[in-house]
Amino acid sequence: MSIEVGILGATGQVGQQFIALLANHPWFKVTWLGASERSAGKAYRDATAWRLPALLPDEVARMTVNNAAPGAAPKLVFSGLDSSVAGEIESAFAQAGHIVVSNSRNYRMERDVPLLIPEVNADHLKLLPCQASRGWKGRIVTNPNCVVVVYAMALAPLRQFGLKTSILTTLQAISGAGYPGVASWDILANVIPFIGGGEEQKIETETNKILGQLKDGAVANHPLTISAAVTRVPVHNGHTASASVSLEQKPDAEAIVDAWNSFRGRAQELELPSAPPQPLVYLTEPNRPQPALDVNRGGGMTVTIGRLRPCPVLDYKFVALGHNTIRGAAGVAILNAELMHREALL
Amino acid sequence: MSIEVGILGATGQVGQQFIALLANHPWFKVTWLGASERSAGKAYRDATAWRLPALLPDEVARMTVNNAAPGAAPKLVFSGLDSSVAGEIESAFAQAGHIVVSNSRNYRMERDVPLLIPEVNADHLKLLPCQASRGWKGRIVTNPNCVVVVYAMALAPLRQFGLKTSILTTLQAISGAGYPGVASWDILANVIPFIGGGEEQKIETETNKILGQLKDGAVANHPLTISAAVTRVPVHNGHTASASVSLEQKPDAEAIVDAWNSFRGRAQELELPSAPPQPLVYLTEPNRPQPALDVNRGGGMTVTIGRLRPCPVLDYKFVALGHNTIRGAAGVAILNAELMHREALL
Amino acid sequence: MSIEVGILGATGQVGQQFIALLANHPWFKVTWLGASERSAGKAYRDATAWRLPALLPDEVARMTVNNAAPGAAPKLVFSGLDSSVAGEIESAFAQAGHIVVSNSRNYRMERDVPLLIPEVNADHLKLLPCQASRGWKGRIVTNPNCVVVVYAMALAPLRQFGLKTSILTTLQAISGAGYPGVASWDILANVIPFIGGGEEQKIETETNKILGQLKDGAVANHPLTISAAVTRVPVHNGHTASASVSLEQKPDAEAIVDAWNSFRGRAQELELPSAPPQPLVYLTEPNRPQPALDVNRGGGMTVTIGRLRPCPVLDYKFVALGHNTIRGAAGVAILNAELMHREALL
Amino acid sequence: MSIEVGILGATGQVGQQFIALLANHPWFKVTWLGASERSAGKAYRDATAWRLPALLPDEVARMTVNNAAPGAAPKLVFSGLDSSVAGEIESAFAQAGHIVVSNSRNYRMERDVPLLIPEVNADHLKLLPCQASRGWKGRIVTNPNCVVVVYAMALAPLRQFGLKTSILTTLQAISGAGYPGVASWDILANVIPFIGGGEEQKIETETNKILGQLKDGAVANHPLTISAAVTRVPVHNGHTASASVSLEQKPDAEAIVDAWNSFRGRAQELELPSAPPQPLVYLTEPNRPQPALDVNRGGGMTVTIGRLRPCPVLDYKFVALGHNTIRGAAGVAILNAELMHREALL
Repeated sequence: MSIEVGILGATGQVGQQFIALLANHPWFKVTWLGASERSAGKAYRDATAWRLPALLPDEVARMTVNNAAPGAAPKLVFSGLDSSVAGEIESAFAQAGHIVVSNSRNYRMERDVPLLIPEVNADHLKLLPCQASRGWKGRIVTNPNCVVVVYAMALAPLRQFGLKTSILTTLQAISGAGYPGVASWDILANVIPFIGGGEEQKIETETNKILGQLKDGAVANHPLTISAAVTRVPVHNGHTASASVSLEQKPDAEAIVDAWNSFRGRAQELELPSAPPQPLVYLTEPNRPQPALDVNRGGGMTVTIGRLRPCPVLDYKFVALGHNTIRGAAGVAILNAELMHREALL
Repeated sequence: MSIEVGILGATGQVGQQFIALLANHPWFKVTWLGASERSAGKAYRDATAWRLPALLPDEVARMTVNNAAPGAAPKLVFSGLDSSVAGEIESAFAQAGHIVVSNSRNYRMERDVPLLIPEVNADHLKLLPCQASRGWKGRIVTNPNCVVVVYAMALAPLRQFGLKTSILTTLQAISGAGYPGVASWDILANVIPFIGGGEEQKIETETNKILGQLKDGAVANHPLTISAAVTRVPVHNGHTASASVSLEQKPDAEAIVDAWNSFRGRAQELELPSAPPQPLVYLTEPNRPQPALDVNRGGGMTVTIGRLRPCPVLDYKFVALGHNTIRGAAGVAILNAELMHREALL
Repeated sequence: MSIEVGILGATGQVGQQFIALLANHPWFKVTWLGASERSAGKAYRDATAWRLPALLPDEVARMTVNNAAPGAAPKLVFSGLDSSVAGEIESAFAQAGHIVVSNSRNYRMERDVPLLIPEVNADHLKLLPCQASRGWKGRIVTNPNCVVVVYAMALAPLRQFGLKTSILTTLQAISGAGYPGVASWDILANVIPFIGGGEEQKIETETNKILGQLKDGAVANHPLTISAAVTRVPVHNGHTASASVSLEQKPDAEAIVDAWNSFRGRAQELELPSAPPQPLVYLTEPNRPQPALDVNRGGGMTVTIGRLRPCPVLDYKFVALGHNTIRGAAGVAILNAELMHREALL
Repeated sequence: MSIEVGILGATGQVGQQFIALLANHPWFKVTWLGASERSAGKAYRDATAWRLPALLPDEVARMTVNNAAPGAAPKLVFSGLDSSVAGEIESAFAQAGHIVVSNSRNYRMERDVPLLIPEVNADHLKLLPCQASRGWKGRIVTNPNCVVVVYAMALAPLRQFGLKTSILTTLQAISGAGYPGVASWDILANVIPFIGGGEEQKIETETNKILGQLKDGAVANHPLTISAAVTRVPVHNGHTASASVSLEQKPDAEAIVDAWNSFRGRAQELELPSAPPQPLVYLTEPNRPQPALDVNRGGGMTVTIGRLRPCPVLDYKFVALGHNTIRGAAGVAILNAELMHREALL
């Protein structure tokens, strides 16, 4: 089996990650690359400086980059487009009949667009038919903001305990800002207590949609109240969240750890190629998780959690970590497409 | 005027910072250095590898290091001793009649020992006479843990609004771990979501004592409930706290910023040499404070605050930053001694 | 005395450093700022994000940025312009009668333009009258590339021993690339063995001009043969050079260290305000100089040297370090202007 | 096939790397761990804090650590012992009949001990019988210092051109100093132009032995004259060497690149499991090799080279990079043992 896929925004940080992750994918094969006019017409290797330790596959290196417009692109396209252009381009692709599996933020909060993590809310795919009313022959599926993926996955198994409120501070990696992103002068041996583009607001809103229930063909947001504070730290990959939560029920710590370690979703049920067998792993060492040691677990698709302890103000506090450009971006998008394939939605 | 001072733990990270800060002090002059037996008898420059950008004063470099025992030491000694030995040594000095101004944690929570920040609770010095009942001819005064200093200073002006609860995550610099401290392998381009020695508990308890009121000759702890999560980040100097607070009164943001910017204490009243004219400075830029840019304000004695905004769970959230080995350790200890001198307690 | 000065390229990395260093200058007072059209008309504080730990002086913050064109600018202008525009703009200023003290590379190798380090080749100012033949009413004086300043200063006292050949590898700080300069993704916990813009060639050619003798109104380049290899390392400020040299005479190590420590130039003779009393300081500790500890010596104007030892291939090897945006850029340019003032050339 | 192996110094940085690399080895199986008395008797997971991103295999985690003494250990033991104890312990093992494949420096320069890189001087194994005269029933084989491996591999194919002299400056990773090794305070955003333990001398002497010819049962050192300057940089893994060489013949650059890319050794001939198909890879991008991008090529066993260009003083200059704890330590030792196995020397 080989399903042809295209990549929108192929020369960017997330675009490169798509190419690296799809290099040996059992189902999907990259046959089309789309980027800005500046890159169009060039061989991919000349259109971008490859910046990942994984080798750029020769076959992709030689491909000619296309203008980011529908037409010759395969039906399934992944989008790592910058949000400044993603809105228009992705809708053009959807209109033309493409399935756009997007990492961009533009359509995430639209009522008829799934904001999807296959382990958490696979049933939100049922929103897709609503998109027909836009006149689209194709569809758009989105994944959450990179840090929201990590945070929402850690919270998902806690819904059973009655999630009420949560306060978190994040320590986010530089790759989350794209490339060139953060200037080295600004972040070397430093902390920046701010991330632009409404990062805190995204955490406070996207999470509720992901954790929400599908009711009458629409998502009823989860009522959790969230307060997010974000910071940038000099780490290559890996967003860390230091979070407190209050819960209606009062489970003991063991019950929470069990909920995390036993958490499985539709991605595991279907044994999707990019799904880690255990999506959440609780680490018992007192000083974990750490980006340098834990971010690549499960090929970067596992979220690690640690330091569960009582919170004197809310109920519990803990630390969660995930790879922001894999689990938090290109990897989760690929998992979304794998899910759609197995659900016969491609 | 020249008051002779000694330094206990002179070869450690905090000891070096004492020496650097006292190099041109208008009142205090270092005339005695105490350290472990391994260093005793050596010239200071041979007993320690000087690790600060500030030059080691020649005069101190040539001084002979003494065993950390009372006797020839001057009446006033600063202590940067490791807590594993500070308990015994500091009490020996107090017993022998010395005034020990200590950065160590051992006596901080003792009922008769001031846990002092001159801007916040200068009146806690009134605890000192109680120490006579220990049979000490001298006294011990302590300053809080490095990150507690920063946090407590940011909270102090909020007491007027009825501080109820606070949740914070810290991002702490490597110098807070002493020397050699954190291995470079562990922290380079990484985050460690843990600091040993009960760091979180110290924040949750010391803060209440500092913010407490003196009543009937004892400190009545402030009733604020605190939940602290600490992390270590690859920054040389500067502990950052990302904090939320709930307040009984509901001041507007402007009132809070005014409370910070107009905050002054006994240190400013007395115009102590190490006191910054404005101990708390609110920065209006959206991405501040940052260690690389703001940590050395006021010679490292100013705490900078930024990003005040509503907290959806508690009332407000903000970011505070202070220099952990100056305002959070050697600098605040020197300020404590300056206060005691002006209050005629030396 | 107060000499008005302007700053071309005021919003860039070197421009900010000019402003910081001139904040309390005894002779020069910034009264004019020039930058690109994008910045012109704005208050300086709105035209640039201030990125230095030193506070932006309020007076400068409020100044309106001008278009980088002569006219209202004072006679003396410092230039931190990018080389892509410096050629045209600086000549326009020179033509209009301004003295341009430039850090840009455009005119450095012109036969009639001094490439100046006041301690090394102050007499090269005698080239200035030649510029009259260009029809310029004003003049241009340049300083070398940032790493060349450090290297040439370390070599200058060795000319007496008959400098023949030198091989060096540099480890250069990120601030040398301007702002935003190097992306954090590229340099965090990494080494880049390359710097664009002909950095190695600049070292191999500018050095010979600086060390050259003035003969018959022109500079006769020093015959030293140089081989430079440059690397970028994750350091904020401070270019390190690991160098070997062969010498015609065979001085012993002590003679070389003496030559460095006793080296003085016209800047010291005239006691120029920015001149460190001892421009070259040899450090005897085996692991020095280091950027983190030594780069700010003498306000960033001192070059530190260490590790002199025999070289099995050439004669000696050693390590030299200097602050690339102070001694290597804005600081040396200010020193050049101070020299010109005292030599009555302004 | 399964050959039992032991690991001396199992709890150290190199010991951990041995365990990680042997986790799925086709021939060797770790069945014995030796360490200091402090660790002996403990389960391995309790005796050491695992510090590698690769997961500690459960099977090894549960093994009991032994005292580092011969007896129950299998015949083949890898040694990652600290040089302060390696001399005595390794000879005890050799005496008792063990084959010690050591990464320690103690026996490297002994006349009867191979200093081995399988691609470069596999025939030096013929020295082994000479060790019988020590009364050893077993044997010791060593690999070079971590940076020497990288450098010697880059030079090996240049021997055909008549290597005469070489000057190099290295930029070495922190993992080369073991654990805890370099304090973070010393190296974060800094460069240390010094490495203890005679690092420069090791480069200047070990290289000549490795590149030497076996004549009459002894190694005749290569006559290359080397001058090494070493620095430590804030990089996790990967030693970079910026080197110049002079050559008797004057090959053009293409011939040199061909010599590197076509270089193969006995390890490739025998298709040893840990041997990369192409041990030296020349990268044509102008800014490579870089630790962050290239250090893990070939599982960390490939040395990457770049930036070949004329050297104005010697003949050519270039940059070489290799993984210091894999190709430069545990990986090359495993390759040495693989070679010995295939040469029937185990």
